[in-house]
Amino acid sequence: MTGPGPDAGPPFFDVVLTQRACRTFADTPVTDAEIDTVLRAATHAPSAENRQPWEFVVVRDPAVQTALHDIAEAAWAGGGRAFSEGRLPDELLAEVDAGYAGGGYRSAPVLVVVCADVERCLPATVASSIFPCAQNLLLAAHALGLGSALTTLGASAGPEVRAVLGLPEHVWPQVVVPLGRPARALGPPRREPVADHTHRDRYGTAWEGRR
Amino acid sequence: MTGPGPDAGPPFFDVVLTQRACRTFADTPVTDAEIDTVLRAATHAPSAENRQPWEFVVVRDPAVQTALHDIAEAAWAGGGRAFSEGRLPDELLAEVDAGYAGGGYRSAPVLVVVCADVERCLPATVASSIFPCAQNLLLAAHALGLGSALTTLGASAGPEVRAVLGLPEHVWPQVVVPLGRPARALGPPRREPVADHTHRDRYGTAWEGRR
Repeated sequence: MTGPGPDAGPPFFDVVLTQRACRTFADTPVTDAEIDTVLRAATHAPSAENRQPWEFVVVRDPAVQTALHDIAEAAWAGGGRAFSEGRLPDELLAEVDAGYAGGGYRSAPVLVVVCADVERCLPATVASSIFPCAQNLLLAAHALGLGSALTTLGASAGPEVRAVLGLPEHVWPQVVVPLGRPARALGPPRREPVADHTHRDRYGTAWEGRR
Repeated sequence: MTGPGPDAGPPFFDVVLTQRACRTFADTPVTDAEIDTVLRAATHAPSAENRQPWEFVVVRDPAVQTALHDIAEAAWAGGGRAFSEGRLPDELLAEVDAGYAGGGYRSAPVLVVVCADVERCLPATVASSIFPCAQNLLLAAHALGLGSALTTLGASAGPEVRAVLGLPEHVWPQVVVPLGRPARALGPPRREPVADHTHRDRYGTAWEGRR
Protein backbone atom coordinates (compact mmCIF):
# COMPACT_ATOMS: atom_id res chain seq x y z
CA MET A 1 0.00 0.00 0.00
CA THR A 2 1.18 3.50 -0.77
CA GLY A 3 1.29 6.22 1.85
CA PRO A 4 -1.69 8.37 2.83
CA GLY A 5 -2.90 10.83 0.25
CA PRO A 6 -6.09 12.81 -0.26
CA ASP A 7 -6.93 10.84 -3.42
CA ALA A 8 -6.82 7.55 -1.60
CA GLY A 9 -9.70 8.47 0.67
CA PRO A 10 -10.21 8.73 4.42
CA PRO A 11 -8.63 6.24 6.83
CA PHE A 12 -10.05 2.76 6.39
CA PHE A 13 -11.47 2.25 9.89
CA ASP A 14 -13.17 5.65 9.84
CA VAL A 15 -15.02 4.46 6.74
CA VAL A 16 -15.89 0.92 7.78
CA LEU A 17 -17.07 1.80 11.30
CA THR A 18 -19.38 4.64 10.23
CA GLN A 19 -20.99 3.21 7.07
CA ARG A 20 -24.75 2.83 7.45
CA ALA A 21 -27.91 2.74 5.36
CA CYS A 22 -29.18 5.98 3.85
CA ARG A 23 -32.73 6.11 2.51
CA THR A 24 -33.33 9.82 1.77
CA PHE A 25 -31.12 11.82 -0.52
CA ALA A 26 -30.35 15.44 -1.42
CA ASP A 27 -30.73 16.61 -5.02
CA THR A 28 -26.97 17.09 -5.42
CA PRO A 29 -25.79 15.13 -8.47
CA VAL A 30 -23.44 12.15 -8.40
CA THR A 31 -20.83 12.32 -11.16
CA ASP A 32 -19.83 9.56 -13.57
CA ALA A 33 -16.31 9.82 -12.16
CA GLU A 34 -17.62 9.07 -8.66
CA ILE A 35 -19.56 6.09 -10.01
CA ASP A 36 -16.44 4.83 -11.80
CA THR A 37 -14.49 5.03 -8.54
CA VAL A 38 -17.19 3.20 -6.62
CA LEU A 39 -17.50 0.46 -9.25
CA ARG A 40 -13.74 0.03 -9.45
CA ALA A 41 -13.73 -0.70 -5.71
CA ALA A 42 -16.68 -3.07 -6.20
CA THR A 43 -14.80 -5.09 -8.83
CA HIS A 44 -11.92 -5.58 -6.39
CA ALA A 45 -13.99 -7.86 -4.19
CA PRO A 46 -13.08 -11.53 -4.23
CA SER A 47 -15.27 -13.90 -6.23
CA ALA A 48 -15.46 -17.68 -6.50
CA GLU A 49 -12.69 -18.83 -8.87
CA ASN A 50 -11.97 -15.11 -9.45
CA ARG A 51 -14.67 -15.19 -12.15
CA GLN A 52 -15.85 -11.63 -11.45
CA PRO A 53 -19.38 -12.49 -12.56
CA TRP A 54 -20.82 -9.02 -11.83
CA GLU A 55 -22.68 -6.81 -14.29
CA PHE A 56 -23.70 -3.31 -13.22
CA VAL A 57 -26.59 -1.29 -14.59
CA VAL A 58 -26.25 2.37 -13.61
CA VAL A 59 -29.68 3.99 -13.75
CA ARG A 60 -30.22 7.74 -14.04
CA ASP A 61 -33.19 7.67 -16.46
CA PRO A 62 -36.19 8.80 -14.35
CA ALA A 63 -38.55 6.42 -16.17
CA VAL A 64 -36.36 3.44 -15.34
CA GLN A 65 -35.87 4.61 -11.74
CA THR A 66 -39.62 5.01 -11.34
CA ALA A 67 -40.27 1.55 -12.74
CA LEU A 68 -37.78 0.02 -10.29
CA HIS A 69 -39.28 2.07 -7.46
CA ASP A 70 -42.77 0.83 -8.30
CA ILE A 71 -41.58 -2.78 -8.27
CA ALA A 72 -39.93 -2.36 -4.87
CA GLU A 73 -42.84 -0.44 -3.38
CA ALA A 74 -45.31 -3.05 -4.61
CA ALA A 75 -43.20 -5.78 -3.01
CA TRP A 76 -43.06 -3.80 0.25
CA ALA A 77 -46.77 -2.89 0.29
CA GLY A 78 -47.82 -6.29 -0.98
CA GLY A 79 -46.28 -8.34 1.79
CA GLY A 80 -42.86 -7.08 2.80
CA ARG A 81 -44.17 -4.52 5.26
CA ALA A 82 -46.74 -6.84 6.83
CA PHE A 83 -44.03 -9.44 7.24
CA SER A 84 -41.71 -6.94 8.90
CA GLU A 85 -44.29 -5.53 11.34
CA GLY A 86 -43.58 -6.91 14.76
CA ARG A 87 -40.20 -8.16 13.54
CA LEU A 88 -38.53 -4.81 12.95
CA PRO A 89 -37.98 -2.19 15.66
CA ASP A 90 -40.55 0.61 15.20
CA GLU A 91 -37.76 3.05 14.48
CA LEU A 92 -36.40 1.02 11.57
CA LEU A 93 -39.87 0.29 10.19
CA ALA A 94 -40.62 4.03 10.25
CA GLU A 95 -37.33 4.73 8.49
CA VAL A 96 -38.17 2.33 5.67
CA ASP A 97 -41.72 3.73 5.40
CA ALA A 98 -40.29 7.26 5.24
CA GLY A 99 -37.87 6.12 2.54
CA TYR A 100 -40.73 4.94 0.32
CA ALA A 101 -42.90 7.98 1.12
CA GLY A 102 -39.96 10.28 0.36
CA GLY A 103 -39.65 8.85 -3.11
CA GLY A 104 -37.70 5.67 -2.45
CA TYR A 105 -35.50 4.68 -5.33
CA ARG A 106 -36.84 7.70 -7.26
CA SER A 107 -35.32 10.13 -4.77
CA ALA A 108 -31.75 8.94 -5.33
CA PRO A 109 -29.74 10.63 -8.09
CA VAL A 110 -28.50 7.21 -9.21
CA LEU A 111 -29.34 3.54 -8.75
CA VAL A 112 -26.79 0.82 -9.28
CA VAL A 113 -28.28 -2.59 -9.96
CA VAL A 114 -25.73 -5.31 -9.26
CA CYS A 115 -26.38 -8.45 -11.27
CA ALA A 116 -24.72 -11.85 -11.64
CA ASP A 117 -23.98 -13.33 -15.05
CA VAL A 118 -24.52 -17.06 -14.50
CA GLU A 119 -22.69 -17.86 -17.72
CA ARG A 120 -19.59 -16.67 -15.84
CA CYS A 121 -20.26 -18.41 -12.51
CA LEU A 122 -22.24 -21.21 -10.97
CA PRO A 123 -25.65 -20.40 -9.51
CA ALA A 124 -24.27 -21.76 -6.20
CA THR A 125 -21.56 -19.08 -6.10
CA VAL A 126 -23.69 -16.06 -7.03
CA ALA A 127 -24.15 -14.93 -3.43
CA SER A 128 -20.54 -15.40 -2.30
CA SER A 129 -19.40 -13.35 -5.32
CA ILE A 130 -22.04 -10.62 -5.49
CA PHE A 131 -22.50 -9.60 -1.84
CA PRO A 132 -18.79 -8.90 -1.17
CA CYS A 133 -18.84 -6.79 -4.36
CA ALA A 134 -21.92 -4.92 -3.14
CA GLN A 135 -20.26 -4.32 0.24
CA ASN A 136 -17.18 -2.83 -1.43
CA LEU A 137 -19.54 -0.60 -3.40
CA LEU A 138 -21.26 0.68 -0.22
CA LEU A 139 -17.97 1.33 1.55
CA ALA A 140 -16.45 3.14 -1.44
CA ALA A 141 -19.56 5.31 -1.74
CA HIS A 142 -19.28 6.22 1.94
CA ALA A 143 -15.57 7.03 1.50
CA LEU A 144 -16.66 9.58 -1.14
CA GLY A 145 -19.36 11.02 1.13
CA LEU A 146 -22.21 9.28 -0.67
CA GLY A 147 -25.08 7.59 1.13
CA SER A 148 -26.27 4.18 -0.02
CA ALA A 149 -28.23 1.12 1.04
CA LEU A 150 -28.02 -2.56 0.22
CA THR A 151 -31.53 -3.49 -0.90
CA THR A 152 -32.68 -6.85 -2.19
CA LEU A 153 -36.45 -6.36 -2.19
CA GLY A 154 -36.57 -4.84 -5.68
CA ALA A 155 -34.08 -7.34 -7.04
CA SER A 156 -36.00 -10.27 -5.58
CA ALA A 157 -38.71 -9.50 -8.15
CA GLY A 158 -36.39 -10.91 -10.78
CA PRO A 159 -38.61 -11.20 -13.85
CA GLU A 160 -40.04 -7.68 -13.47
CA VAL A 161 -36.63 -6.10 -12.87
CA ARG A 162 -35.27 -8.06 -15.82
CA ALA A 163 -38.00 -6.68 -18.09
CA VAL A 164 -37.40 -3.08 -17.02
CA LEU A 165 -33.63 -3.30 -17.51
CA GLY A 166 -33.65 -5.52 -20.59
CA LEU A 167 -31.55 -8.15 -18.85
CA PRO A 168 -31.02 -11.43 -20.70
CA GLU A 169 -32.00 -14.67 -18.97
CA HIS A 170 -28.47 -15.38 -17.81
CA VAL A 171 -28.10 -12.06 -15.98
CA TRP A 172 -29.73 -12.18 -12.58
CA PRO A 173 -30.49 -8.97 -10.68
CA GLN A 174 -29.32 -9.36 -7.07
CA VAL A 175 -28.99 -6.00 -5.33
CA VAL A 176 -30.26 -2.46 -5.94
CA VAL A 177 -28.13 0.30 -4.40
CA PRO A 178 -29.43 3.89 -4.38
CA LEU A 179 -26.61 6.43 -4.30
CA GLY A 180 -26.61 10.13 -3.42
CA ARG A 181 -25.64 12.70 -0.84
CA PRO A 182 -27.55 12.02 2.40
CA ALA A 183 -30.47 14.43 2.86
CA ARG A 184 -29.49 14.76 6.53
CA ALA A 185 -26.66 13.65 8.78
CA LEU A 186 -26.87 9.97 9.66
CA GLY A 187 -26.42 8.75 13.21
CA PRO A 188 -23.88 6.10 14.17
CA PRO A 189 -24.64 2.49 13.22
CA ARG A 190 -26.23 0.45 16.00
CA ARG A 191 -24.27 -2.73 16.63
CA GLU A 192 -24.01 -5.37 19.33
CA PRO A 193 -20.58 -5.94 20.96
CA VAL A 194 -18.21 -8.36 19.24
CA ALA A 195 -17.72 -10.36 22.43
CA ASP A 196 -21.43 -11.22 22.58
CA HIS A 197 -21.14 -13.22 19.36
CA THR A 198 -17.58 -14.54 19.39
CA HIS A 199 -16.38 -17.94 20.61
CA ARG A 200 -12.91 -19.30 21.24
CA ASP A 201 -12.04 -22.56 19.43
CA ARG A 202 -15.50 -24.05 19.93
CA TYR A 203 -19.02 -22.63 20.12
CA GLY A 204 -19.94 -21.69 23.69
CA THR A 205 -16.43 -20.91 24.96
CA ALA A 206 -16.28 -17.19 25.72
CA TRP A 207 -13.90 -15.21 23.54
CA GLU A 208 -12.94 -12.90 26.38
CA GLY A 209 -12.94 -15.38 29.24
CA ARG A 210 -9.63 -17.08 28.45
CA ARG A 211 -7.38 -14.09 27.74
CA MET B 1 -15.62 10.79 9.77
CA THR B 2 -12.74 12.11 11.78
CA GLY B 3 -9.50 13.25 10.17
CA PRO B 4 -6.68 10.93 9.18
CA GLY B 5 -4.81 9.27 12.03
CA PRO B 6 -2.47 6.33 12.32
CA ASP B 7 -4.97 4.38 14.46
CA ALA B 8 -7.66 4.65 11.85
CA GLY B 9 -5.68 2.69 9.29
CA PRO B 10 -4.36 3.36 5.79
CA PRO B 11 -6.40 5.31 3.23
CA PHE B 12 -9.56 3.46 2.24
CA PHE B 13 -8.88 3.10 -1.48
CA ASP B 14 -5.35 1.84 -0.87
CA VAL B 15 -6.91 -0.96 1.16
CA VAL B 16 -9.84 -1.86 -1.07
CA LEU B 17 -7.88 -1.83 -4.35
CA THR B 18 -5.03 -4.04 -3.11
CA GLN B 19 -6.89 -6.65 -1.05
CA ARG B 20 -6.46 -10.15 -2.47
CA ALA B 21 -6.48 -13.78 -1.39
CA CYS B 22 -3.54 -15.08 0.64
CA ARG B 23 -3.09 -18.84 1.00
CA THR B 24 0.33 -19.24 2.65
CA PHE B 25 1.24 -17.63 5.93
CA ALA B 26 4.28 -16.76 8.02
CA ASP B 27 4.55 -18.07 11.58
CA THR B 28 4.19 -14.57 13.07
CA PRO B 29 1.34 -14.57 15.58
CA VAL B 30 -1.91 -12.65 15.22
CA THR B 31 -2.96 -10.98 18.47
CA ASP B 32 -6.36 -11.06 20.13
CA ALA B 33 -6.41 -7.27 19.82
CA GLU B 34 -6.01 -7.55 16.04
CA ILE B 35 -8.80 -10.10 15.89
CA ASP B 36 -11.04 -7.82 17.96
CA THR B 37 -10.39 -4.97 15.50
CA VAL B 38 -11.12 -7.15 12.50
CA LEU B 39 -14.34 -8.53 14.03
CA ARG B 40 -15.50 -5.07 15.05
CA ALA B 41 -15.24 -4.03 11.40
CA ALA B 42 -17.05 -7.22 10.38
CA THR B 43 -19.99 -6.44 12.68
CA HIS B 44 -20.39 -3.04 11.04
CA ALA B 45 -21.59 -4.59 7.80
CA PRO B 46 -25.26 -4.13 6.97
CA SER B 47 -27.61 -7.06 7.53
CA ALA B 48 -31.21 -7.73 6.59
CA GLU B 49 -33.44 -5.95 9.13
CA ASN B 50 -30.19 -5.03 10.98
CA ARG B 51 -30.44 -8.40 12.74
CA GLN B 52 -26.67 -8.93 12.86
CA PRO B 53 -27.10 -12.72 12.71
CA TRP B 54 -23.36 -13.48 12.71
CA GLU B 55 -21.54 -15.73 15.16
CA PHE B 56 -17.74 -16.01 14.96
CA VAL B 57 -15.64 -18.95 16.09
CA VAL B 58 -11.98 -17.93 16.36
CA VAL B 59 -9.85 -21.05 16.10
CA ARG B 60 -6.26 -21.25 17.35
CA ASP B 61 -6.38 -24.78 18.79
CA PRO B 62 -4.21 -26.87 16.42
CA ALA B 63 -6.48 -29.91 16.79
CA VAL B 64 -9.50 -27.91 15.68
CA GLN B 65 -7.56 -26.24 12.86
CA THR B 66 -6.38 -29.64 11.64
CA ALA B 67 -9.90 -31.04 11.74
CA LEU B 68 -11.19 -28.12 9.66
CA HIS B 69 -8.24 -28.46 7.29
CA ASP B 70 -8.97 -32.17 6.82
CA ILE B 71 -12.61 -31.42 6.00
CA ALA B 72 -11.65 -28.79 3.41
CA GLU B 73 -8.90 -30.91 1.88
CA ALA B 74 -11.24 -33.90 1.60
CA ALA B 75 -13.82 -31.71 -0.15
CA TRP B 76 -11.12 -30.41 -2.52
CA ALA B 77 -9.54 -33.81 -3.22
CA GLY B 78 -12.92 -35.55 -3.33
CA GLY B 79 -14.41 -33.48 -6.12
CA GLY B 80 -13.61 -29.80 -5.79
CA ARG B 81 -10.29 -30.04 -7.63
CA ALA B 82 -11.62 -32.25 -10.42
CA PHE B 83 -14.48 -29.83 -10.87
CA SER B 84 -12.11 -26.87 -11.07
CA GLU B 85 -9.68 -28.44 -13.55
CA GLY B 86 -10.25 -26.88 -16.92
CA ARG B 87 -12.38 -24.18 -15.31
CA LEU B 88 -9.66 -22.42 -13.34
CA PRO B 89 -6.59 -20.82 -14.91
CA ASP B 90 -3.56 -23.09 -14.30
CA GLU B 91 -1.96 -20.38 -12.20
CA LEU B 92 -4.89 -20.18 -9.78
CA LEU B 93 -5.27 -23.97 -9.62
CA ALA B 94 -1.57 -24.26 -8.76
CA GLU B 95 -1.98 -21.58 -6.09
CA VAL B 96 -4.83 -23.48 -4.43
CA ASP B 97 -2.89 -26.78 -4.66
CA ALA B 98 0.14 -25.09 -3.10
CA GLY B 99 -2.07 -23.72 -0.34
CA TYR B 100 -3.23 -27.22 0.63
CA ALA B 101 0.27 -28.71 0.25
CA GLY B 102 1.70 -25.92 2.40
CA GLY B 103 -0.62 -26.79 5.26
CA GLY B 104 -3.83 -25.09 4.16
CA TYR B 105 -5.95 -23.97 7.10
CA ARG B 106 -3.31 -25.50 9.43
CA SER B 107 -0.66 -23.05 8.23
CA ALA B 108 -2.60 -19.96 9.31
CA PRO B 109 -2.09 -18.70 12.87
CA VAL B 110 -5.86 -18.24 13.19
CA LEU B 111 -9.04 -19.27 11.45
CA VAL B 112 -12.25 -17.31 11.78
CA VAL B 113 -15.38 -19.31 11.01
CA VAL B 114 -18.25 -16.96 10.21
CA CYS B 115 -21.63 -18.52 10.95
CA ALA B 116 -25.25 -17.42 10.70
CA ASP B 117 -27.68 -17.91 13.58
CA VAL B 118 -30.96 -18.67 11.82
CA GLU B 119 -32.89 -17.97 15.02
CA ARG B 120 -31.87 -14.33 14.44
CA CYS B 121 -32.55 -14.16 10.68
CA LEU B 122 -34.43 -15.88 7.91
CA PRO B 123 -32.63 -18.59 5.93
CA ALA B 124 -33.33 -16.44 2.85
CA THR B 125 -31.30 -13.55 4.26
CA VAL B 126 -28.26 -15.52 5.46
CA ALA B 127 -26.18 -14.76 2.36
CA SER B 128 -27.01 -11.05 2.12
CA SER B 129 -26.06 -10.65 5.80
CA ILE B 130 -23.01 -12.91 6.10
CA PHE B 131 -21.02 -12.14 2.93
CA PRO B 132 -20.89 -8.35 3.47
CA CYS B 133 -19.71 -9.12 7.02
CA ALA B 134 -17.03 -11.47 5.67
CA GLN B 135 -15.91 -8.83 3.18
CA ASN B 136 -15.51 -6.23 5.94
CA LEU B 137 -13.45 -8.83 7.81
CA LEU B 138 -11.10 -9.37 4.84
CA LEU B 139 -10.66 -5.64 4.25
CA ALA B 140 -9.99 -4.90 7.92
CA ALA B 141 -7.43 -7.71 8.04
CA HIS B 142 -5.69 -6.23 5.01
CA ALA B 143 -5.73 -2.77 6.61
CA LEU B 144 -3.78 -4.32 9.52
CA GLY B 145 -1.32 -6.05 7.17
CA LEU B 146 -2.89 -9.48 7.58
CA GLY B 147 -3.49 -11.84 4.68
CA SER B 148 -6.80 -13.68 4.42
CA ALA B 149 -9.05 -15.55 2.03
CA LEU B 150 -12.78 -16.00 1.74
CA THR B 151 -13.29 -19.76 1.59
CA THR B 152 -16.59 -21.59 1.47
CA LEU B 153 -15.43 -25.13 0.66
CA GLY B 154 -14.85 -26.10 4.29
CA ALA B 155 -18.04 -24.43 5.43
CA SER B 156 -20.09 -26.15 2.73
CA ALA B 157 -19.49 -29.40 4.60
CA GLY B 158 -21.96 -28.13 7.20
CA PRO B 159 -22.58 -31.19 9.38
CA GLU B 160 -18.87 -32.04 9.69
CA VAL B 161 -17.88 -28.47 10.49
CA ARG B 162 -20.75 -28.28 12.98
CA ALA B 163 -19.49 -31.39 14.77
CA VAL B 164 -15.91 -30.10 15.02
CA LEU B 165 -16.96 -26.70 16.36
CA GLY B 166 -19.86 -27.88 18.53
CA LEU B 167 -22.30 -25.64 16.68
CA PRO B 168 -25.98 -26.05 17.55
CA GLU B 169 -28.42 -26.84 14.74
CA HIS B 170 -29.48 -23.21 14.35
CA VAL B 171 -25.92 -21.95 13.76
CA TRP B 172 -24.86 -22.48 10.17
CA PRO B 173 -21.18 -22.29 9.19
CA GLN B 174 -20.85 -20.14 6.07
CA VAL B 175 -17.29 -18.95 5.57
CA VAL B 176 -13.85 -19.96 6.86
CA VAL B 177 -11.25 -17.18 6.80
CA PRO B 178 -7.58 -18.02 7.53
CA LEU B 179 -5.69 -15.04 8.94
CA GLY B 180 -1.96 -14.38 9.23
CA ARG B 181 0.96 -12.42 7.88
CA PRO B 182 1.50 -13.33 4.21
CA ALA B 183 4.46 -15.71 3.74
CA ARG B 184 5.52 -13.65 0.74
CA ALA B 185 4.51 -10.40 -0.95
CA LEU B 186 1.29 -10.73 -2.91
CA GLY B 187 0.95 -9.37 -6.42
CA PRO B 188 -1.79 -6.97 -7.44
CA PRO B 189 -5.30 -8.36 -7.85
CA ARG B 190 -6.25 -9.25 -11.43
CA ARG B 191 -9.47 -7.54 -12.44
CA GLU B 192 -11.32 -6.78 -15.66
CA PRO B 193 -12.08 -3.12 -16.44
CA VAL B 194 -15.26 -1.64 -14.97
CA ALA B 195 -16.45 -0.44 -18.39
CA ASP B 196 -16.52 -4.02 -19.72
CA HIS B 197 -19.29 -4.92 -17.28
CA THR B 198 -21.21 -1.68 -16.81
CA HIS B 199 -24.34 -0.54 -18.62
CA ARG B 200 -26.13 2.80 -18.73
CA ASP B 201 -29.83 2.73 -17.82
CA ARG B 202 -30.47 -0.56 -19.62
CA TYR B 203 -28.41 -3.67 -20.28
CA GLY B 204 -26.43 -3.39 -23.49
CA THR B 205 -26.02 0.39 -23.53
CA ALA B 206 -22.35 1.18 -23.08
CA TRP B 207 -21.46 3.00 -19.88
CA GLU B 208 -18.72 5.01 -21.53
CA GLY B 209 -20.31 5.61 -24.93
CA ARG B 210 -22.73 8.34 -23.86
CA ARG B 211 -20.51 10.58 -21.76
